[in-house]
Amino acid sequence: MKDFIFSNTTKVYFGKAQLHHLSEEIAQFGKKVLLVYGGGSIKRIGLYDKIIAELNKAEMEIFELPGVEPNPHHTTVNKGAALCKKEGIDVVLAVGGGSTIDATKAIAATAKYEGDDCWDIITGKAFVPDNLPIVAVLTLSATGSEMDIGGVISNVEQNEKQPMFGPTLRSNVSFLDPTNTFSVNAYQTASGSVDIMAHVFDVAYFSAQEEMDMLTRMQEEVLKTVVKFAPAALEKPDDYDARANLMWASSWALNGFLFSGIEQDAIAHMIEHELSAFYNITHGHGLAIVIPKWLSYILDEKAAPKIKRLGVNVFGVDPAFSDMDGAKAAIEAMEKFFFDTLGLKSRLSDLGIDDKNFAIMAKKACGAKGKLEGFTTLTPADVEKIFELCS
Amino acid sequence: MKDFIFSNTTKVYFGKAQLHHLSEEIAQFGKKVLLVYGGGSIKRIGLYDKIIAELNKAEMEIFELPGVEPNPHHTTVNKGAALCKKEGIDVVLAVGGGSTIDATKAIAATAKYEGDDCWDIITGKAFVPDNLPIVAVLTLSATGSEMDIGGVISNVEQNEKQPMFGPTLRSNVSFLDPTNTFSVNAYQTASGSVDIMAHVFDVAYFSAQEEMDMLTRMQEEVLKTVVKFAPAALEKPDDYDARANLMWASSWALNGFLFSGIEQDAIAHMIEHELSAFYNITHGHGLAIVIPKWLSYILDEKAAPKIKRLGVNVFGVDPAFSDMDGAKAAIEAMEKFFFDTLGLKSRLSDLGIDDKNFAIMAKKACGAKGKLEGFTTLTPADVEKIFELCS
Repeated sequence: MKDFIFSNTTKVYFGKAQLHHLSEEIAQFGKKVLLVYGGGSIKRIGLYDKIIAELNKAEMEIFELPGVEPNPHHTTVNKGAALCKKEGIDVVLAVGGGSTIDATKAIAATAKYEGDDCWDIITGKAFVPDNLPIVAVLTLSATGSEMDIGGVISNVEQNEKQPMFGPTLRSNVSFLDPTNTFSVNAYQTASGSVDIMAHVFDVAYFSAQEEMDMLTRMQEEVLKTVVKFAPAALEKPDDYDARANLMWASSWALNGFLFSGIEQDAIAHMIEHELSAFYNITHGHGLAIVIPKWLSYILDEKAAPKIKRLGVNVFGVDPAFSDMDGAKAAIEAMEKFFFDTLGLKSRLSDLGIDDKNFAIMAKKACGAKGKLEGFTTLTPADVEKIFELCS
Repeated sequence: MKDFIFSNTTKVYFGKAQLHHLSEEIAQFGKKVLLVYGGGSIKRIGLYDKIIAELNKAEMEIFELPGVEPNPHHTTVNKGAALCKKEGIDVVLAVGGGSTIDATKAIAATAKYEGDDCWDIITGKAFVPDNLPIVAVLTLSATGSEMDIGGVISNVEQNEKQPMFGPTLRSNVSFLDPTNTFSVNAYQTASGSVDIMAHVFDVAYFSAQEEMDMLTRMQEEVLKTVVKFAPAALEKPDDYDARANLMWASSWALNGFLFSGIEQDAIAHMIEHELSAFYNITHGHGLAIVIPKWLSYILDEKAAPKIKRLGVNVFGVDPAFSDMDGAKAAIEAMEKFFFDTLGLKSRLSDLGIDDKNFAIMAKKACGAKGKLEGFTTLTPADVEKIFELCS
């Protein structure tokens, strides 16, 4: 196994009676806060008022950036960063799901950039070693952005969706209250749950690299947590245990622990990102469609044992199967979970996506290297075939 | 489940080619370092010379405190703290196992105390909100001190062994190189492995509190890691995979993750601490003797399901057993693992301990409250009976 550095400095307040710590935590960073949020669901659930009360308690001067999109736009990030510079913002506060937190991270970095376009940083044209402090209040269990070092930003003009990473691009303090996810609807609960599982698959479980046994089994426990509690949350949206397990699973899927010593391949993510870049679909739903077809496409003698192991340890597939049959049963069980249990549509055509852009998306997914390397290596032709299997 | 705060700021360098980062990491804290170590094994394995070379590379002024005892003495801590004050030490560097790191933490705190006796802090007579920065190079997988917020110090004059906790009593940077444990002998490998398991049992698994399902299963994975890799390390002491899994398991057993939302009862530890306080035995060996007898003693209808679950999920006990029979089989399997597989002696009499001090040790174990509360509540009379079962 490879050497690695583990460091995760995010302080997490987890639970239903923790928000009263927000005032003391935010005040340590200064007096001026930019409150970043999305479409207004935080007002519907009463969270906005509680946040404002906490900020007033800390005597913060409050600026707001509402309207962050799902798959957040780089133009929105630029707007937030300009506001930070103009007003001399000390700390950015994200209240929302992964899109809001991702946008907030990008704002925090761009606010320290002498240029005005975050896309310069995201594409590597500019390097910004520092960012404003970040505080997050999570309302959706999915992306892991609350405890990881990155985010994903979309450039809608160019149909591009790109990740952004940096050691300081981490929330300083995150508030994880499972009750804030009680109102998440079935579709977003299902999509978020697939996103959690996809992180485990993509950053560690399906990897060409040698792994640490303890961590492989920890990865399976996070997957089993989702398999157990996503249906429970769908059945009873205010099931605290279910929402709490999903929330902590989302953070731990991507906070560095599970992939200690493994460089993340993120192949399924690279493929799916093209779908949500071109069609603005929900990331987790795209992943649910892509992952089983990706695994079917790459299934050979080399890939079979690990895919079978997933089936046996996570989906209850019979260990007596051969590697190949066990792997097929695993993929079937996964599809049954995504499409029957979680109720997601199984085809790109269900989302109104036809084959028009498959070739260009496949090429873009493979990036400048012209291929995706990892658990197995994929060329643009391979990715195009995977899109066809999904259609 | 209870609300909780998760925060772990230790930066870990894990692997076989990481020590070259020591110079840059230590230099950030100042110019004067106190190097703390134990009986000299770090010289035998060549680690001492590598450490000195790194410190010289960083142009540090080096002071040394060798000779830290297993179950480290408060007088040694006081000696180290006095040296820190006299020389104006900037950072303390522990090179060794849990005893050395624990002593180093206590030195780091006492160096900031206006008095000169660490026992004042440990017994709560004095409060020190701050400590010198701590860096650790681990050579034994056992106590988890490399990533946790506490340590255990012994007062040999009073036959007392007391824990010491504090949010800043955490190693700032820890170096975990599994090859530094290749030379750990069979006895210390076995004892350290039991210590890791005991942390999981004591801080989380056997708890009266409501738990988060994902974490219970994560706890079992840490336990299974030890059950798998401790025998492998005994069989082949330079098995890198085995040593690496044990090392990372030791850190994660006690770094806060597994017991998110659970207040630690630490009942078995409280009982065992009396044994090592009075008789200076190896902590992990004491735990191996105490834990199965403690579980046998408390086994009733309420305790049976969780003990059976341990048996089924960790030791391969047949799930078809009744709760009570399954629990008995679990305890038997645990004893077989500790005493047959790991080769530890099973009785206090094997360690030269007779019943002379059972009553006073039982009373001390129950502390000022006069009882141990947790998974089950124990009085001094109960603890004395457990000692008798162990004798």
